[in-house]
Order: sequence, then structure tokens, then C-alpha cells
Amino acid sequence: MSSQTIVTLLTDFGTADGFVAAMKGMILTRAPQACLVDITHEIPPQDVRAGAWALRESCWTFPAGTIHLVVIDPGVGTIRKPILLQSRGQLFLGPDNGVLTLGAATEVSGWTLDRAEFFALEVSATFHGRDIFAPVAGWLAAGTPPGLCGTPMAQWNRLALPPPRIRGHGISGIVVHVDRFGNLITNLAREQVSVSEAWTVILPQGAIGTICRTYAEVEPGQWVAYWGSSGFLELAIRDGSARAAGYSLDTEVTLCRPQ
Amino acid sequence: MSSQTIVTLLTDFGTADGFVAAMKGMILTRAPQACLVDITHEIPPQDVRAGAWALRESCWTFPAGTIHLVVIDPGVGTIRKPILLQSRGQLFLGPDNGVLTLGAATEVSGWTLDRAEFFALEVSATFHGRDIFAPVAGWLAAGTPPGLCGTPMAQWNRLALPPPRIRGHGISGIVVHVDRFGNLITNLAREQVSVSEAWTVILPQGAIGTICRTYAEVEPGQWVAYWGSSGFLELAIRDGSARAAGYSLDTEVTLCRPQ
Amino acid sequence: MSSQTIVTLLTDFGTADGFVAAMKGMILTRAPQACLVDITHEIPPQDVRAGAWALRESCWTFPAGTIHLVVIDPGVGTIRKPILLQSRGQLFLGPDNGVLTLGAATEVSGWTLDRAEFFALEVSATFHGRDIFAPVAGWLAAGTPPGLCGTPMAQWNRLALPPPRIRGHGISGIVVHVDRFGNLITNLAREQVSVSEAWTVILPQGAIGTICRTYAEVEPGQWVAYWGSSGFLELAIRDGSARAAGYSLDTEVTLCRPQ
Repeated sequence: MSSQTIVTLLTDFGTADGFVAAMKGMILTRAPQACLVDITHEIPPQDVRAGAWALRESCWTFPAGTIHLVVIDPGVGTIRKPILLQSRGQLFLGPDNGVLTLGAATEVSGWTLDRAEFFALEVSATFHGRDIFAPVAGWLAAGTPPGLCGTPMAQWNRLALPPPRIRGHGISGIVVHVDRFGNLITNLAREQVSVSEAWTVILPQGAIGTICRTYAEVEPGQWVAYWGSSGFLELAIRDGSARAAGYSLDTEVTLCRPQ
Repeated sequence: MSSQTIVTLLTDFGTADGFVAAMKGMILTRAPQACLVDITHEIPPQDVRAGAWALRESCWTFPAGTIHLVVIDPGVGTIRKPILLQSRGQLFLGPDNGVLTLGAATEVSGWTLDRAEFFALEVSATFHGRDIFAPVAGWLAAGTPPGLCGTPMAQWNRLALPPPRIRGHGISGIVVHVDRFGNLITNLAREQVSVSEAWTVILPQGAIGTICRTYAEVEPGQWVAYWGSSGFLELAIRDGSARAAGYSLDTEVTLCRPQ
Repeated sequence: MSSQTIVTLLTDFGTADGFVAAMKGMILTRAPQACLVDITHEIPPQDVRAGAWALRESCWTFPAGTIHLVVIDPGVGTIRKPILLQSRGQLFLGPDNGVLTLGAATEVSGWTLDRAEFFALEVSATFHGRDIFAPVAGWLAAGTPPGLCGTPMAQWNRLALPPPRIRGHGISGIVVHVDRFGNLITNLAREQVSVSEAWTVILPQGAIGTICRTYAEVEPGQWVAYWGSSGFLELAIRDGSARAAGYSLDTEVTLCRPQ
């Protein structure tokens, strides 16, 4: 290989223990030239939805050939399958619980990872990240073709953002992610809902105004709605936190056409 | 290029979301051989002063040719300019709010980053780290000369440590940083204030003793003052935390000559 | 060198300041091709035992030639020695306080790091991670033989897991680590204590059942004991946290043979 292969890692393991490093050692032992990039390891334990979002938000910025390794795995040790998806020239490894499918959303091929010769010699019941996923990622990074690591499959579990709903007065969505700043990200995609900036944004407790271009258009402490960097409508309290103000996942957000 | 170019990243984005990873993908897409190093992403949101300190503390240990990417950017989306500074053979990218200028402090040339062909195809209003700074850092890491990425400029906003003040009885400074251990770092630089170890260190509530060489010279629970690893006078409570004891930024610290 | 040398870093410095990055700059200045991997920087300040555990848990997954740099150093600035150990083809650098010795446990050679020409030009009293350990790690990663960096030594401080104790009714051990999920890891190694799965696991407040293969064998909220991924008996509360339930280091755990 002329260039290093990028392997990203996304888990709910935290960084206080040696868990993530153990996975990295397994990868580098098999692919000494790999370039390792952490997406995040601070996904709340077992929160498949939050993991899927972090992957979606970042995976598209990486070049073709990148391998994304995702271990949010409430079902470790049970019969859920370890899988490999290929989408738009990138590879995605993780458990078959939907966590890969907001990132690997289009042009997808899939394999079940069932070739034990690519696993660690001994596979524990509780740490498949180290014993199954990382070794396979290492072999892939070293140039092993995906088709050698598993058996093609046609069906896997998918996670999807709920679609916006048309209402009498406009379009209604929900909060699908709250970021570290306490901002609310909705499922209302700019490309999908063709609304003008004059539409009113409504939260359960009332209207908060129209859609702005940036935070600076409102005063500190005021609500602001804008098309976020992920392409979705976001709601924030300028210099504050919507999370701290009591807002959370699944809050309803409605866009209402001008009367 | 015979060797990998180092790109460091310093933000207030935290590591719980995919924000930092999205920046890394943008860099690696343009400079597949880049070596990425996190300085920190835990700067308190929008704390330009804390970001500038973390950069100052670490940037000088990196080799010439290193590119430092700093995104502490309260003004994102407003008219503040994205800039590039060159200092002592290293490059510094970030918003023009002073955050770069404790690190890039001497022998500095500057450019305004105004060549959109080096940005992402689409530039969001809220995430210039991903859409402007990371792509430019990627092109620089791939070998693009700084002069191609922007227009030379002569003026930019600077942040400077307040100078110590001469007092009747000695020299007075303030706490400019509190580290994770709760130690207080002052603006009293060893090279600048030529005092002997016999001078007394005085906090607002009273004298705490003379200057020691290391923590071990005092008992656990006692105050200790010493020349810290950054070259400044530091104050700590041995096996304790001055922050937890109520001390914070801007606390006055006076060095008093022996009577 | 045909391939990059891996250097891992393990400290109690946290990642909010520039401390770790300063060490990385020192390494990369001397070994531009080094591949840096963080094990963790969230060891509780000065907790030698926790640092030794994180190293033990992860170091064996890395290839031969890897350099492990560990700075948990309550004695920095005192007479404790900086040392270098070689074990199973890997190198371990750190203070002589036992922190390296759960990782570097067998086939060990040792050197005292006493060659100042491999340190930073100026060595501070409080930051040997940056001024002694990182520069030496850099030179080693650049190909300097271990024997050039120090003087052979035969004795160093060792940390060891307490051995399990034989009791009338079985075998007794203690909790030696609590991980981020709040699970309890004991010193009862599967290879060492040959017990069948039918033995009963007993905590101070009473028996919690026999040994399971995975979490899924008990109901949420129930205690589960299993052979963990480190090879030791682990105790957990499914979908809960034993730490949150009040359990901590040194809790006694007894394996009792069937009556």
C-alpha cells in the first residue's frame, strides 16, 4: 500500500480504562501502517441512537477507503451478529443493531463476519470490540478484501430518522440529537422541507421566531433556529444551553407557514 | 514529502460529538499522510484565553513545519476573519480573536484566509472549523504554500499576558491559568523577574512562604510556590487543589523582597 | 526504519491542559515517524495502582517493538529514579514506583535512565514527563538502543496483584479494579483458580449466584459474575453499576465450592 489506511473508532467505552487502547493494539498488530482516528468514546453506555448520529455526522468527511469501527453493543455475547457494510467506498464494522446504518445509508453491500480465522485466537464473551471487530478491522486495513472476512448478506437491522410529518399549518419534526453545547438538532432536513426563512419555528411552549442564518442574529439568552452544519434545523439558546433549560430528545418542533 | 506533516488540533468542541472527527476527515482527505495530534478539546466553550494558554504551553515542543489548528471561535458566522500566522517555522490557523497569539508570539507573518477555493465546497454558517479551517490546514499539510491560501496582512488582534507590576515592596502579578490539578499559574516569568529564592510569596489572605524547588519541600496540605514547567511562578497546595480552596483566575500574587 | 514505531502514552494529566501534547511534541521532534497512541490520561491523580492496571489491560495487544510511556509520578522531583524496562520485546518507561510492573511482568531487563544527553536541554523540577521521559521515548523510537539511554540495573520497585487465598470453603480474592461501567474486576484469575462454573460467588452481604458466561444470562438489575476479558473473575449488576451500588476496591469476593 502506498498510503496509510484510516481506521476510525467509535465506542461507548470511555477513555478512562484501557479498553480502546486494547482495540488499537489489535489493529496495529495486523496493520502497522494504519492511521487511527477517534470519533468519540463518550457515547452514553449502550445508546445505539447517539452512536449512529455521531457516525453520520463525521464519516462522510473521510476519504474513500476509510474503515469505520463502531462498538456500541448492548447485545455483546448474545446471538446478534457482527457485520460489515460497504457504502460509498467506505467500510463500516459493528454489531447488527442499526448503529452503522445512518452512516452507511446508501449504495450498501453487507457481510456477516463469520470467519473466525480473522478474530483473536481467543474470543471473550464480553469484549468483542477487542476480540472480533478490531482484529477484522486490522486485516481489512492490511488489505484483506471484505469478501474474504465474511458471508454476503441481504438483510440487516436498520435505524432510520423518523420522517417529518405534514401538518395542517406546516411541517412537524422532533429533536433527534442534543450536542455538547446543549443545542437541539431536529430531523427537519433543509433539502427535504422546502420552507422559506419566513416560516415560524414552534416549540411545545410556543413560537420562538423565524429561521436565522447564525447565532449572532439574536441577543444572548434568546432562542435561535438555524440550518445547522449537519443540514438539519437546529435550535439553540444563544450563549446558553437548551438542554440545561429542560429540552431533550423527542421534543416536537413545528415549522409553520406564514399566515 | 519524505515525512508526515504534523497537524495539531485545539478546540472547545469536547469529544462527545463527532465535531472534531469531522475536522480530521477534512484534513486527511486533503493530506493523507498528515499526523494528527490533539492538544485539547476541553477548553471551556468560547474561552479564548484558556485556549491561547494551552497552545502556548505545548506548541513550542513541536518541530518546525508543524501546523496548529485552533478553533475557539465565539464569533463564528460574524465578520471576524479566519487567519493564518507563521512564527518560528510553524503555522497557526484560527479566528482573528487573539487565540493564536500567545503561541505565535515572535517573528510573525500573517495572512487573511480569503481564498474560497481552499474551503469546503459548501461553507455552513456555524461550523467553520470543518468548512474553512480544516480544509485549509489539509491543503497546507499537503504542501500548499501559506501565501497561496490568503492575502498578507499586517494587523491582527493580539492577546497578551498582563505584565507584572513593580510595587514598593516587590513585584505583583496575577493568576493567568488554573490547571487540571487545581494549581495556580501566574504571569510572573522566571526570566523576567530576577528575584532570589528568599523572596516571600504573598496571596490576598497572607504570606505563604518562599519559593521552593518542588512540592516535596512542604508537607501535604501546605501551600507551595515554585518555578513551574512553563517558566512561570506557580502556587499549589501539596496533594490538594488551590481551585477547590476557592482560588481562581486573576487572584493577585505578590513577591516581596526580604526585609 | 521501514515502519513507524508505536509509542503509547498513559498518564494522570487529564486532557484539558496542554501537558500531554507537550510530551507528544517532544517525541515527534526526535522521532517524526512515531505512531502515537493514547492509552488513557484519566488515571486519578497519583493513583499508581490504577495506572498499572490500565497498562496491564492493554499493552499485550500491541506488537513487539512498541514503547509504552507511563507517567503516574507522585514522586516527581524527588530521588525516585526514571527507569526503562524491556519485557517480551516491548519497552516500558516511567518512574520507579511499580507502575510499569503489571505490564512488564516477565522476561524483564531494566535500566536506570541516567544519561542527561537524552533529556530535554533544560529539565524542570515538576514535569519529567515532558523533560525526561518523552525525550528518551523519542530517541528510543528513533532507533537508539535501550542500553545507550541508561545503566543496567537489577532491582526495581514492583507492584503485584495480591494472590488469592485458599479458605476452608473455597478461594478468596479482592476487587483490584473498578471499570468505567462500574464493574468489579477481581484478582481471581481463571487460569489460576481451577473452579467449575458450579461454585458460588459470595460478596460480603451474601451469595450472588454461580458463574455465568455473559450478562444476558441474568435479568436487568441482577448481579452477574463471569470470567472477564482480562482473564479475571468480574462482578457486575446487569444494566447497572456495582460502583453506584457502593462497591469499591478491596471488597472481598469468595468462590465457594458446591456443598
